[in-house]
Amino acid sequence: MGSGKSVVGVFGLGYVGIPLAIRMAEVGLKVVGFDIDEKRVADLNANRSPIKHFASETIARARAAGFEATLDFSRTAECDHLIICVPTPLNAYREPDLGFVVATMESISPYFRRGQMLSLESTTWPGTSREILIPYVERAGLVVGEDFHVVYSPEREDPGNKNFTTRTIPKVIGGHTPQCLKAGIDLYSRFIDTVVPVSSTDAAEMVKLLENIQRAVNIGLMNEIKILTDRMNLDIFEIIDAAATKPFGFTKYFPGPGIGGHCIPIDPFYLTWKAREFGLHTRFIELAGEINADMPKYVLNKTIRALSERGIAPKGAKVLALGIAYKRDVDDMRESPSVITMELLRDWGVEVDYSDPNVPVFPRMREHHFDLSSVELTPENLAKYDAVILLTDHSQFDYDLILANARLIVDSRGKFRGSYDKVVRA
Amino acid sequence: MGSGKSVVGVFGLGYVGIPLAIRMAEVGLKVVGFDIDEKRVADLNANRSPIKHFASETIARARAAGFEATLDFSRTAECDHLIICVPTPLNAYREPDLGFVVATMESISPYFRRGQMLSLESTTWPGTSREILIPYVERAGLVVGEDFHVVYSPEREDPGNKNFTTRTIPKVIGGHTPQCLKAGIDLYSRFIDTVVPVSSTDAAEMVKLLENIQRAVNIGLMNEIKILTDRMNLDIFEIIDAAATKPFGFTKYFPGPGIGGHCIPIDPFYLTWKAREFGLHTRFIELAGEINADMPKYVLNKTIRALSERGIAPKGAKVLALGIAYKRDVDDMRESPSVITMELLRDWGVEVDYSDPNVPVFPRMREHHFDLSSVELTPENLAKYDAVILLTDHSQFDYDLILANARLIVDSRGKFRGSYDKVVRA
Repeated sequence: MGSGKSVVGVFGLGYVGIPLAIRMAEVGLKVVGFDIDEKRVADLNANRSPIKHFASETIARARAAGFEATLDFSRTAECDHLIICVPTPLNAYREPDLGFVVATMESISPYFRRGQMLSLESTTWPGTSREILIPYVERAGLVVGEDFHVVYSPEREDPGNKNFTTRTIPKVIGGHTPQCLKAGIDLYSRFIDTVVPVSSTDAAEMVKLLENIQRAVNIGLMNEIKILTDRMNLDIFEIIDAAATKPFGFTKYFPGPGIGGHCIPIDPFYLTWKAREFGLHTRFIELAGEINADMPKYVLNKTIRALSERGIAPKGAKVLALGIAYKRDVDDMRESPSVITMELLRDWGVEVDYSDPNVPVFPRMREHHFDLSSVELTPENLAKYDAVILLTDHSQFDYDLILANARLIVDSRGKFRGSYDKVVRA
Repeated sequence: MGSGKSVVGVFGLGYVGIPLAIRMAEVGLKVVGFDIDEKRVADLNANRSPIKHFASETIARARAAGFEATLDFSRTAECDHLIICVPTPLNAYREPDLGFVVATMESISPYFRRGQMLSLESTTWPGTSREILIPYVERAGLVVGEDFHVVYSPEREDPGNKNFTTRTIPKVIGGHTPQCLKAGIDLYSRFIDTVVPVSSTDAAEMVKLLENIQRAVNIGLMNEIKILTDRMNLDIFEIIDAAATKPFGFTKYFPGPGIGGHCIPIDPFYLTWKAREFGLHTRFIELAGEINADMPKYVLNKTIRALSERGIAPKGAKVLALGIAYKRDVDDMRESPSVITMELLRDWGVEVDYSDPNVPVFPRMREHHFDLSSVELTPENLAKYDAVILLTDHSQFDYDLILANARLIVDSRGKFRGSYDKVVRA
């Protein structure tokens, strides 16, 4: 690559791209971050963090060390390494939507040159790098594995996890050729403690899907079992805790109001879609998807039944949703089952408010609209509602205060153990 | 209970009752072991171990410490504590068969007296202790929780596990009443390091099922994914190993030729059956059951296809099955998928032999008959077969020898990594 500092381009400055850029700047790499969101680029260049769990000081330190953000994709030409970290969602028909990856490739491939390495970190189906990325490189007249290297290295970010960082989470890498793999290992081992080479980009793509499939299926299993144990008048959380005392062969997964975030509800269906090409079905994924997606309805039914038992018509009842981020202690609302539950309640004519210390104002979302701000959890406010529903068990919530002051608690997270007349398990 | 040493009766001297009796004798309890199998009782009283992984010296030590075996159920009257460890299989319709538990209760309940405690350790549906055990106690004119205590405490034996013993595996206990639970904790904490009380016998019954359900479902998931990755020309074992480098949220489960043993293929259906009473389905359990049960057919198809590719008609071909115990390094053949696979091969007219260092002679089984002895693994013997199928990956097998001398290897356990022309993944 010639003399001087390596320059790494990071495409997509979100939950994956930002920590990656921060970490690379930390070890002295020059990092150019690309995004199409003007505000995000301006914020980062002004040392303002767009994401709650990255401190603005961290952004400032990365900036001082050699990170900058840009809207100008022609600067791809400056970069020796190109890392794509854009979202890979599903479309309305639960099919992979690779639009952001393709748009990025369209924007950057005119600037491809010899000596560059391209890495895709976005979760996707096995075969994506071969089928989607490689043709762009070949059309640019470059020979993969000689002039230009292509690897797939899935992101494994876990927002809110205090035990692991970008640096300490081992990184799987698959190369299109052995030379590509070598180039990938060379880059990533500069800032990741452990890199895990696998035999191909397809294998690396499958690894990431398997991780999230296992999680989605196990949560689905616990949700199905919860519905049954509830009918048997058993507390699933007590059962799970006791099962986890087995020192081998049992892993804790918890039921809840459904699954959210950008990975677990989405990624598995990338495999489902790809499997059709081989005439196969991914029945566990589809079953888990169905059960997990139905959990907000389960919480709804528990709530309206509990209101009814207390002589309150659901229509016009006042209900407070506790926690609207998709999981504990984050501010991310993507695919949050809390929002689905709120919509189901609203559809029944329930007057819904919410309280979430991490989400002061209900954000604009593509498919959901609530003109609401977070309600402060005071004894008076809690007592105003016919019911509160615990949907996301943030550690900042004062559970004693909630228990003391709420009139009725619908608990989808097993936070209120024991027998309380005012608590209904959901 | 009066003065003197406590006497514990153990009903059923098998994979669960024997280690329990050994451990209790170790701490100085007098243990009377009951069984209906005359040979087993005679063997034990002659210090001969009926199970490979318990040494005869261990039996002798337990005998010296106060353990004896008997066929005489009237001696129940001598015992202060009664622990039932009999099998709980399924009938031909995959319904719970509690015949052994009921037969034991019929044999011992005439000798019930005040001050005794009854514990069931056999895996069963939530509700069994209440529904099946309690009526016997009440018919004996005893008041549960006052005169007589009833607990459920599921066995967690894991044959072949070198890291944990009866003593160090935490033991879940549920009591029919708080006094029952107290009596259970009093007994078990004398010889188990950690006891885990739960709120009811139903809860304790459910804990054990959940442990085994999670295992059955996760193995089923890996089997389904294996079939797909194989079509994609990816090695599932490489994928699993790489996924397991994620330091949180992924647990290794391996695909294989199906599931065996007395627990994982059976226990989950106890919940399936009970769920019907509540109008509910256990869809994950049924899906896992279906996929796992079909794996021998998958191995069969891989084998006959591989023979065919080599120009060999499956009918009349000579095939050696490696490993017929249900899992690595045990001699237990209950529900072994190897046996199912051998039957499928035989049904195609394949001439099947087997080699298993732990099973020198094919035993008499209720549903399976092979008049065979284990073939010694020599270069000459291996070369005689058109194919060998690795079904159970015992650590005693010499895999280099197999790889060097077999003509064709069908590998259902991922032991032969890398690319070898003679190895077919199954």
